Amino acid sequence: MPPFGLLHMRAWVSLFNQLLRPSGLVCIREVHFHSQVSEAVLTSQLKPHQEKSNFIIKTPKGTRDLSPQQMVVREKILDMVVGCFKRHGAKRLDTPAFELKEMLTEKYGEDSGLIYDLKDQGGELLSLRYDLTVPFARYLAMNKVKKMKRYQVGKVWRRESPTIVQGRYREFCQCDFDIAGQFDPMIPDAECLKIMCEILSGLQLGDFLIKVNDRRILDGLLAVCGVPESKFHAICSSIDKLDKISWNDVRHEMVAKKGLAPEVADRIGDYVQCHGGVSLVEEMFQDSRLSQNKQALEGLGDLKLLFEYLTLFGIAEKICFDLSLARGLDYYTGVIYEAVLLQTPAQAEESFNVGSVAAGGRYDGLVGMFDPKGRKVPCVGLSIGVERIFAIVEQRLKTSGQKIRTTETQVFVATPQKNFLHERLKLISELWDAGIKAELLYKNNPKLLTQLHYCEHMGIPLVVIIGEQELKEGVIKLRSVASREEVAIKRENLVAEIQKTLSES
Amino acid sequence: MPPFGLLHMRAWVSLFNQLLRPSGLVCIREVHFHSQVSEAVLTSQLKPHQEKSNFIIKTPKGTRDLSPQQMVVREKILDMVVGCFKRHGAKRLDTPAFELKEMLTEKYGEDSGLIYDLKDQGGELLSLRYDLTVPFARYLAMNKVKKMKRYQVGKVWRRESPTIVQGRYREFCQCDFDIAGQFDPMIPDAECLKIMCEILSGLQLGDFLIKVNDRRILDGLLAVCGVPESKFHAICSSIDKLDKISWNDVRHEMVAKKGLAPEVADRIGDYVQCHGGVSLVEEMFQDSRLSQNKQALEGLGDLKLLFEYLTLFGIAEKICFDLSLARGLDYYTGVIYEAVLLQTPAQAEESFNVGSVAAGGRYDGLVGMFDPKGRKVPCVGLSIGVERIFAIVEQRLKTSGQKIRTTETQVFVATPQKNFLHERLKLISELWDAGIKAELLYKNNPKLLTQLHYCEHMGIPLVVIIGEQELKEGVIKLRSVASREEVAIKRENLVAEIQKTLSES
Repeated sequence: MPPFGLLHMRAWVSLFNQLLRPSGLVCIREVHFHSQVSEAVLTSQLKPHQEKSNFIIKTPKGTRDLSPQQMVVREKILDMVVGCFKRHGAKRLDTPAFELKEMLTEKYGEDSGLIYDLKDQGGELLSLRYDLTVPFARYLAMNKVKKMKRYQVGKVWRRESPTIVQGRYREFCQCDFDIAGQFDPMIPDAECLKIMCEILSGLQLGDFLIKVNDRRILDGLLAVCGVPESKFHAICSSIDKLDKISWNDVRHEMVAKKGLAPEVADRIGDYVQCHGGVSLVEEMFQDSRLSQNKQALEGLGDLKLLFEYLTLFGIAEKICFDLSLARGLDYYTGVIYEAVLLQTPAQAEESFNVGSVAAGGRYDGLVGMFDPKGRKVPCVGLSIGVERIFAIVEQRLKTSGQKIRTTETQVFVATPQKNFLHERLKLISELWDAGIKAELLYKNNPKLLTQLHYCEHMGIPLVVIIGEQELKEGVIKLRSVASREEVAIKRENLVAEIQKTLSES
Repeated sequence: MPPFGLLHMRAWVSLFNQLLRPSGLVCIREVHFHSQVSEAVLTSQLKPHQEKSNFIIKTPKGTRDLSPQQMVVREKILDMVVGCFKRHGAKRLDTPAFELKEMLTEKYGEDSGLIYDLKDQGGELLSLRYDLTVPFARYLAMNKVKKMKRYQVGKVWRRESPTIVQGRYREFCQCDFDIAGQFDPMIPDAECLKIMCEILSGLQLGDFLIKVNDRRILDGLLAVCGVPESKFHAICSSIDKLDKISWNDVRHEMVAKKGLAPEVADRIGDYVQCHGGVSLVEEMFQDSRLSQNKQALEGLGDLKLLFEYLTLFGIAEKICFDLSLARGLDYYTGVIYEAVLLQTPAQAEESFNVGSVAAGGRYDGLVGMFDPKGRKVPCVGLSIGVERIFAIVEQRLKTSGQKIRTTETQVFVATPQKNFLHERLKLISELWDAGIKAELLYKNNPKLLTQLHYCEHMGIPLVVIIGEQELKEGVIKLRSVASREEVAIKRENLVAEIQKTLSES
C-alpha cells in the first residue's frame, strides 16, 4: 500500500470517530432522522380567506433537504476533499448559481436539454449552472487569466430523471479542482490523477481503479476502423455503455440502431475491449492501423509520458488504460479519466451501484470559446462525485448503528431548583464569552432529570449544576455525563476548570 | 467593555493576522485582483459556423464571481459566525436552492415581486429561495419537527435593483440562526440578541447598536393613534424610513401620499421618534393611550422581560428600544430587531453606508401556514448580513495595503539544474503523502530564479532544493524564503525536518 494510504487510514479512523458520539452514553430519547421524501398533504386551506387547498408540502422533484446528521457527514468529507486541494496549492473561487443562458450553450452536447432555465421576468435570459467547469472557463476568459490552479465547491443543477436510490439528484454538490495554463505536457495531468488517488484512498471507500483514455486516441481509433466522422458522436455514446452492458449488446446497438457496417463494429470491438497498464500503451504504438493515425499517436505519446509520472507518484498500479472510456461532455480534448470503486463497501447492508466517484480530463478549447480572439488557455481538471461518496458513508454509518452528534455543545448549565433562571443565564453568558460551547433549557423551572436526559440524548459531556447550596458556598458542581461523577469547584475558577477538563478529554 | 469584547478582540487580531502574508517578504510580481465587473466584448464568433457575434462575456446583472482573495476573507468571517452558532448549540441544515413556487407565496408581502421564478420546462413550478427562513419553516412543517435550534449558511436570490456600491447584490449569502419550539417567553429571544452581539463584537467592525421593537407594540400604536387597519401596512413602511429620512418627510408621505389625517400622523410622530432603554419600556407602560391596547401591553411586557435577560447577559447597553423599527417582512409576529453600525470603520478610506448588518425577530405563525391543521411552531431567529460585513473587511484590508495569501502552500520543490523533473516529482509526492502542502512548477527545466520568485510572490515560507550535488550526497537543501538561509538535511529526514520547521514557525 502506498504511504498516502497509511496516512489517510488514520485520517479516516479519526473522521469516523469524530462522527460518533462518545461511547458509554445511554441514549434516552431516540434521535429523529427526518425523512427527506416525506410528504404531508395539506387538506386545510393556507389561510381561511384563500381558495388554496390540498397542496402537497414537499421539496421540488429530485431535490431534498439535508438533515443535521447528513450535514455533519458532508462537512467532514468536504473538509478532507478541500484539504487535499489545498495541499496541492489551489485557490478557492466562487461563481454565481446562474449564468447568462448563452454562456452555457454549445458546451454540453446532448446534455444541454437538462439545463434549468430561469423564467424571463424582464432583463437577461439566465440558466442555472450545469457544472463548475464552464463557469471557470468563463471566469478565465472574462478576466484574461492565463494561469490558475483553483478549486470550487458548490451546487449544480441538472433536470435529470432522478434515480434517488443511486444517489442521483437534480441538485447536487460538486468539488472541482482544475489547473489552467500552458505547461510542459502531462505534469498537471498527472497531478490531477494523484489528487484523485489521495482523496479516494483517504476516504477509505474500498479499492478503486482509475480508467484513463484520450479523446484523440478514441477519435483516431474510430477513424482507422472506418467510422464516418458524422457518426463519431453516436458510436462514442455506444462505446461509453461498455461498463454497463456487454460487447455483444453494444455491437448490436452500433449495427442495428446506428447503421454501422458489421465489420467496422468488429474492428472497434478489437480495440475497446482492451484495457491494461503502460504495456498496452506500448502495444497500441505498434498497432498497424492505429499507428497510422497522427491524432492517436499524439494521444498515445502523452499517455506514455503520463504513466512515467504516475510511476514516480507511486500510483501507476491504480491506473488502467481503457480504450472504451469515452466521457460524455463535449469539451474534452485530450486525456480523460474516471475513477470507479471496484466493490461495494464491505460493511454496507445493501449493494450500492455508485458508478464513477470521480472524473475529469483535459479541455484545451473551452476558454477559447469565450475569448473574443479565440485565445486558448489549456486546462485539465477533475470533479469529485461527493454525492455518491456521501451516500456510501451515510450507508456505512447507518449499518454501524452508531449515532452521530449533530451539535458540538461541551457544557450544559443545569439547576435542581426552582427560580434559578437568572443564575443560569449569568453563568452561561460567562461560558459563551469564554468561547465555551454551552446550552441550557429555555424553561423557567425545568426538572433536573429532564436536563440530565437532554445531555445524555445530545452527547454533551459536561454539566455545571448550580443550586441554592452552591450559590451560598460560592461553588459550582461540575458533572461528567458519562461517569456521573461530580466535583465542586470555586465559582471564580469555573471557566478555567472547564477548559482544563475539556483539554484533558 | 463586556468580556466577550476582550475575547473576540484577540480573535479578530488573529483573523487579521491570518489573512496577511508573513512580513519580511518582498513581492516580486504584482498580485492580480481580478475585476469583478470587467466585461469583454466578444467581437468574433464563437465557432466559425455559428451566427453569434458581439455578445458580452459577463456574469448576470447583480451577481459576481468571488476571487480567491475574496474567498479567503469570506471563509474566515464565516468560520467566526458559524463558530458562534455552534457555541450556542445549533445544528446545521441545508435546503434546496429552489422551492415549489407556492411555498413562497403569501410570505413576503410587497417583496414577492422580487422572487426569481424558474422557467416552466414541464413539471413543477419552481422559484429560487428568497431567504432561509421560509424554507426552514417549510422543513419544520414537512417533517413535523416541533423543536429545533438550527443554523444555515447559503445563497439566496432577490431581483432587486442592484446598488453594488452598498454591497447589495441579486445573489448573496445569508447566515441564519433560529430557535423553533414552545418555550418560556423571551429566553430564546434574548439568546438571539446575545448571538448578534457576540458576532458583531467579535468581528470588531466598530461600535454598533441593536434596535428592538415588537410588532404588537407597532400595531397597538397605530390602532390607538387612529390609523384604520387597512392602512397599517402602508403607514408601517413609511415609519420604516425614519432611519433614512427625517420625521417631517415621513409625516408628509403619510399625510400627502397615504391620506392619513394630520392629527393622526402627529400622534404617531410622538411615539416613533422615541428610543431608549428599559426606562422607555416602563414609560410606555404608563402611556395613557398605549396602555389601553391589549396587544401593545403584551409586547411591552415581553420587552420588559427581554431587557431583564439582556442585563444578565451583559448586553443591555447595546440594545435600544426604538418605536420606529418596523422590518419589512410579513411573517414577524413579536419582537423584531436590527443591528446597525454606529460609524464607519475608522480605517476605511471612503465612508460606507452599510445599513443594518444583522436583523431578525419572532415569527410564530409561519410554520402553521405550512401545516395541514395549522399547528403552530413558535420561532425566533436572526440573519447576519455577511455580505455587508465582507465589504467592510475587504475595504479595510484594501486600505491597509496588505496582501492576502490565497493558498496555504508550505513548501516549494525546486531545482537549480536541468533534467531533474523526475527527482522533483518523487520528492513532492513524498511531501503530499505526508500531508505537507507543496507545489512545484509544471516545467521540465524551470530557472531557479523563476522558482524562487514564485515562492516570494505566493508567500510560500519554505523551499526544498535538489540538485546533482545533493543527490550524490543523499541530502536536500531546505531554504527559508524570508531569511534566505539554507540548511542541508539528510534525504531520509526530509519530512520530519520540514514538519519540525513548520511547527516551530
